[in-house]
Amino acid sequence: MSADAGPRVYQDMTWEEISAAAAADLPVAIPIGATEQHGRHLPVCTDWVLPQRVLCEAARLRDFVVGPFVPFGYRSRPGSGGGQHFPGTISLRATTFMSVLEDILSELKRGGFNNIVLYNWHFENTGFVYEPAFLVSERHPGLKVVVVEDVFPEFTSERRNILWPDGFPGLALEHAAVIETSLWMYHDESAVRTDRMAPDAPQRVVNHDVLPIDTRMSTASGSLSSPMGASAEVGKLLTEWLVERVVAIIDEEFG
Amino acid sequence: MSADAGPRVYQDMTWEEISAAAAADLPVAIPIGATEQHGRHLPVCTDWVLPQRVLCEAARLRDFVVGPFVPFGYRSRPGSGGGQHFPGTISLRATTFMSVLEDILSELKRGGFNNIVLYNWHFENTGFVYEPAFLVSERHPGLKVVVVEDVFPEFTSERRNILWPDGFPGLALEHAAVIETSLWMYHDESAVRTDRMAPDAPQRVVNHDVLPIDTRMSTASGSLSSPMGASAEVGKLLTEWLVERVVAIIDEEFG
Amino acid sequence: MSADAGPRVYQDMTWEEISAAAAADLPVAIPIGATEQHGRHLPVCTDWVLPQRVLCEAARLRDFVVGPFVPFGYRSRPGSGGGQHFPGTISLRATTFMSVLEDILSELKRGGFNNIVLYNWHFENTGFVYEPAFLVSERHPGLKVVVVEDVFPEFTSERRNILWPDGFPGLALEHAAVIETSLWMYHDESAVRTDRMAPDAPQRVVNHDVLPIDTRMSTASGSLSSPMGASAEVGKLLTEWLVERVVAIIDEEFG
Amino acid sequence: MSADAGPRVYQDMTWEEISAAAAADLPVAIPIGATEQHGRHLPVCTDWVLPQRVLCEAARLRDFVVGPFVPFGYRSRPGSGGGQHFPGTISLRATTFMSVLEDILSELKRGGFNNIVLYNWHFENTGFVYEPAFLVSERHPGLKVVVVEDVFPEFTSERRNILWPDGFPGLALEHAAVIETSLWMYHDESAVRTDRMAPDAPQRVVNHDVLPIDTRMSTASGSLSSPMGASAEVGKLLTEWLVERVVAIIDEEFG
Amino acid sequence: MSADAGPRVYQDMTWEEISAAAAADLPVAIPIGATEQHGRHLPVCTDWVLPQRVLCEAARLRDFVVGPFVPFGYRSRPGSGGGQHFPGTISLRATTFMSVLEDILSELKRGGFNNIVLYNWHFENTGFVYEPAFLVSERHPGLKVVVVEDVFPEFTSERRNILWPDGFPGLALEHAAVIETSLWMYHDESAVRTDRMAPDAPQRVVNHDVLPIDTRMSTASGSLSSPMGASAEVGKLLTEWLVERVVAIIDEEFG
Amino acid sequence: MSADAGPRVYQDMTWEEISAAAAADLPVAIPIGATEQHGRHLPVCTDWVLPQRVLCEAARLRDFVVGPFVPFGYRSRPGSGGGQHFPGTISLRATTFMSVLEDILSELKRGGFNNIVLYNWHFENTGFVYEPAFLVSERHPGLKVVVVEDVFPEFTSERRNILWPDGFPGLALEHAAVIETSLWMYHDESAVRTDRMAPDAPQRVVNHDVLPIDTRMSTASGSLSSPMGASAEVGKLLTEWLVERVVAIIDEEFG
Repeated sequence: MSADAGPRVYQDMTWEEISAAAAADLPVAIPIGATEQHGRHLPVCTDWVLPQRVLCEAARLRDFVVGPFVPFGYRSRPGSGGGQHFPGTISLRATTFMSVLEDILSELKRGGFNNIVLYNWHFENTGFVYEPAFLVSERHPGLKVVVVEDVFPEFTSERRNILWPDGFPGLALEHAAVIETSLWMYHDESAVRTDRMAPDAPQRVVNHDVLPIDTRMSTASGSLSSPMGASAEVGKLLTEWLVERVVAIIDEEFG
Repeated sequence: MSADAGPRVYQDMTWEEISAAAAADLPVAIPIGATEQHGRHLPVCTDWVLPQRVLCEAARLRDFVVGPFVPFGYRSRPGSGGGQHFPGTISLRATTFMSVLEDILSELKRGGFNNIVLYNWHFENTGFVYEPAFLVSERHPGLKVVVVEDVFPEFTSERRNILWPDGFPGLALEHAAVIETSLWMYHDESAVRTDRMAPDAPQRVVNHDVLPIDTRMSTASGSLSSPMGASAEVGKLLTEWLVERVVAIIDEEFG
Repeated sequence: MSADAGPRVYQDMTWEEISAAAAADLPVAIPIGATEQHGRHLPVCTDWVLPQRVLCEAARLRDFVVGPFVPFGYRSRPGSGGGQHFPGTISLRATTFMSVLEDILSELKRGGFNNIVLYNWHFENTGFVYEPAFLVSERHPGLKVVVVEDVFPEFTSERRNILWPDGFPGLALEHAAVIETSLWMYHDESAVRTDRMAPDAPQRVVNHDVLPIDTRMSTASGSLSSPMGASAEVGKLLTEWLVERVVAIIDEEFG
Repeated sequence: MSADAGPRVYQDMTWEEISAAAAADLPVAIPIGATEQHGRHLPVCTDWVLPQRVLCEAARLRDFVVGPFVPFGYRSRPGSGGGQHFPGTISLRATTFMSVLEDILSELKRGGFNNIVLYNWHFENTGFVYEPAFLVSERHPGLKVVVVEDVFPEFTSERRNILWPDGFPGLALEHAAVIETSLWMYHDESAVRTDRMAPDAPQRVVNHDVLPIDTRMSTASGSLSSPMGASAEVGKLLTEWLVERVVAIIDEEFG
Repeated sequence: MSADAGPRVYQDMTWEEISAAAAADLPVAIPIGATEQHGRHLPVCTDWVLPQRVLCEAARLRDFVVGPFVPFGYRSRPGSGGGQHFPGTISLRATTFMSVLEDILSELKRGGFNNIVLYNWHFENTGFVYEPAFLVSERHPGLKVVVVEDVFPEFTSERRNILWPDGFPGLALEHAAVIETSLWMYHDESAVRTDRMAPDAPQRVVNHDVLPIDTRMSTASGSLSSPMGASAEVGKLLTEWLVERVVAIIDEEFG
Repeated sequence: MSADAGPRVYQDMTWEEISAAAAADLPVAIPIGATEQHGRHLPVCTDWVLPQRVLCEAARLRDFVVGPFVPFGYRSRPGSGGGQHFPGTISLRATTFMSVLEDILSELKRGGFNNIVLYNWHFENTGFVYEPAFLVSERHPGLKVVVVEDVFPEFTSERRNILWPDGFPGLALEHAAVIETSLWMYHDESAVRTDRMAPDAPQRVVNHDVLPIDTRMSTASGSLSSPMGASAEVGKLLTEWLVERVVAIIDEEFG
């Protein structure tokens, strides 16, 4: 972090500034998301903008680069992201997604970075983030990659009571619901179409998947549980908890 | 199920018998596993033999084909399968694994099957099972694929107390531990090297991953939690619960 | 264009807003760029931010969606982008880049769009933009894709005299030079490190390429010709000319 | 071979047992087959079970590991396996099949094995076995791979007279015929539906192939020549001859 | 065949002439070869020039197009082509070779051809020719592909006595030996460096392969058996026999 | 160049001759083309035969090997090659084309060549030639690859007046027009169907592309501008200019 200039954000830096950060052996943390429907009230960029905001907050506390973000993710699934039948969602095939990450990792290593965090916001990317990290790591013994496929902090019962006073829907169903709506309210309230917010819930919640898509496992709105409990205050709290975890990981792995 | 002949097992059938099953519109359930270290006391075939045993039990209650099993899986990860540094483990790249499933699904469809269950035992395969199912489903509108990436039934607190009287280690750490050891004891006790069983636990349990592998997130034995509480009785119970869930899914989806 | 709300920008829209635009048969124009060194004075996001700005201006004159942008491009080459030896540059392999575009096109078509413009800012992407467009077009007869691999308008001699009073260096060498610096000055002057601007030129300019990279075909700064003639006024003019061409293409192809 | 415990079979070993075998520099021999129709009287697992049986016999004479078997092969062809129009047959694309072998070879090398035999039973796999062996061998100079694409011993005229007293049909047509039926009769007679055995022969035998499949080059039953001459005695003899060849190869290459 | 103009050779035709041939439903026969060492006395183009010559002769007897030839093949193997350790040999990976054929077949179908013969001279291409034919055939029901992976006619004992009065070495060892040398002598004697001809034979002839390459399975010269018995007369005879078979296949399949 | 024997042409050499050339550290120059419609009067081999002729002329002045030619190229585009709707044209997918070049480069390096020129005649191959050169160069630090994607010399105004006295149509439109027709007239006039020559021009010339193909951007004949000004004299001049440039590149890069 350059004290007066705010967090180091990869995209806004010149090559010399990036090169200096790499030479100083700073970590670089890559926000990984998706372009995916987020209900009637949130924009499709939710999954790649929110992790950037969180990392930028964390970058005020520890000196690392908020790396190049990945705006496309693996296919949306009904029980966690609404499913591939929604217009607006733009997903990559598994092979494409993994190739993109493989190339980004190789290029960052070429540019001098030895410490990389993959910070993934989109649930469906799980596994597909690990594989490219594994492949690139095998080729570059000097490289350390930290794979954070699930960015959420531990939700203790105390925290659950704050976030979901009416009962915890399960993290998978927290799509376009309390967490993401609150974070947007805190970070950029103009993104939230509050007049389009409404409770919703899947008709069918099971622990398996079906193809062709069984739309009863998703919802009509795209929110998998109710966003009505969202607030900027909760967004602030969530940001603190998320940042706390980022900082802890950075300290543990690169301290 | 042919009443007197035991479950229909794909590999043991002739093409005419298979074709007859497909013509009768029976589902086919594919056991998907891995060839992976399972501690000092269990064989590396654990992940593809156990789901076969479970499905064969279920096939005594409902008429479906226990399909061609997949003996290789995606890479083992330290916190759920011990990790890729163990000898004995033979993993496929993500792209290879997905291609294998894609081909099997296409061929089963070609052979006349319209109802397929992917029954996955190996945690790390999650996501990599869904993608080939998605791809093949897109090409064959008449095909229904049920993706069971997590085969385990709900472990209610009552069940947890039976399985883990000393405390539940979390399902991810249930590798080569109580569940799998008990199932082997029930289905084929000769596979268990009881003299090699001993408690073990990772030195470090976190919700992120690191490459190159941090061996503190795995164990020396390969068991990620203690198998000492295993017994054939527990194996019998687990089999019942697992079978119950298979039957429920078959009934719900193809009833 | 929704009259009072500014241009329609894909990433900021909800799935319902996107779906409505597709239903209205609006075109969607995808800014395609690269994350690439742009000299000592411009940020690495230049190639994907500038086309967004231009398209947003054009979207004030014609009603279309400024689509999902592609922030990574094919490898930088010495004589047009400085070359792959620069830190900061993050390029994709040809196969990865083409797969990304293929997936985006397929997904936009799935989402209801029948009219797509690929608006490419990064010279090295030429050819690699056409191939995915061809592949997706073959599969979707109802889809029309307009491939703009070279976004620049005709630079008549009159225009050349305005832009390069001291002589035209050739478009390939216009990297991080007058055009891009002027556009930044006009659209966001805070992005330009004016104190780091200086003339530069390759020691060797030939019409072939060499591997391993011959650094004499590139420069030390990363600007391939001098940016010193840049100004916000020129940036404004260039924006007008670029917008004019976008509007002309939209009118000709989808009018 | 552990004297009292029978042959070392990879799948049934623990990782420590496998690791010890690798450390002792034992060869590992991989049975490669297919899931393919084998007439009206033999199961579809024929091509991957029979090579296991043969290798297990050989492993009583020489100390090596009967490695992880490959139950899926390249596409069946009319004149050697009946062809891809048969239900029950589950074939891999060429690319998938080669990737599977490539991964298995890489993983065995990682696990410590330096001496590998690829023991292929399925005629159509020819060529597709060599390529992955070549690729992995290039990357691992310390690795020796023996590629046995045709497992059959020399059938001298004396042997031919024993096996085919009524005339030799050619090895390609020996599909689900005398050889395989006899081997099953010797190794597990319960697998043979003797009531379904009958003579058969293609209407058309030529030395080229045709697509779409010309079914006259295959048969209705799936047996490409008559299995009627099969017997357990012949199966015993064939096993001896096959084992003899395995032992000879092991001695020549790793002696 | 246009009566006075010699055989129709794809490469020498204009698009209109090709289109007319396709419209007349003529077959097109593709010579498939390799760029491979052919001993001390024959050029590396042997495998793709000789099949062209044979097909041109056949095209004087039946009206078909001698199609676009494929000058690169799959990797050379010691016991049939000398092996990949020879300089001069330029082989494709299996995946590349199959993709080339897949594209050529698709393009010929697009251009109007419904009847295609794949005429393969290079032994190691076996299997790799069938796969692309299968893939393209699946996509184009109206297309018929005849796969001739082994171009040689039946060598009756009478013929063997003519070709190899001192004993038949086996077809695999007929590399850069009597057959190919004779054909060159007949078709273009200037290609044969007669002063470099000499007998040769592998030190080791076995029915398996070894990697890294065991050079005893190949020879120092690259000829796998002696070319000394070659003559233009034999080349003429061979041409007749080869042409006879081409004509027979054309008549049988497209008559 | 062996003084009395004419240029060294890869395909006509034995492996020993090739190996000697590599050992002498001679460059090898690979003619890269396409099989593509070239109007009503030129054969489809134009793009891979003409660069061979030019390189053979250059090889009389400098000692290098005229390497293995590549007869297939990337897809034809309307504004530069007529487009993929023409019968006769046989194009490769981008991935196939790049794989072919990657394999050829790897094999030439394996054969001992350290200096390679990629000499590309087909406009649409641009970019697709650089990528495989980059990939292979990365793996072989001792290898130098010169990428000539645009073979044409500088057309000074003096030269333009000679070639196009009625006005320069632009190089892209010089397809099957003055340049290529003249070169054929000079090198092999029998290839030119002079009776089929006629002026032609696209109805629409723009600097973007459209899919599905807008045939107004191509022509009915396949010639994109008039070939009527062609002559053998111009062909001779062009050959001199082209050769001059080859020689200059060889001297600069390998002198």
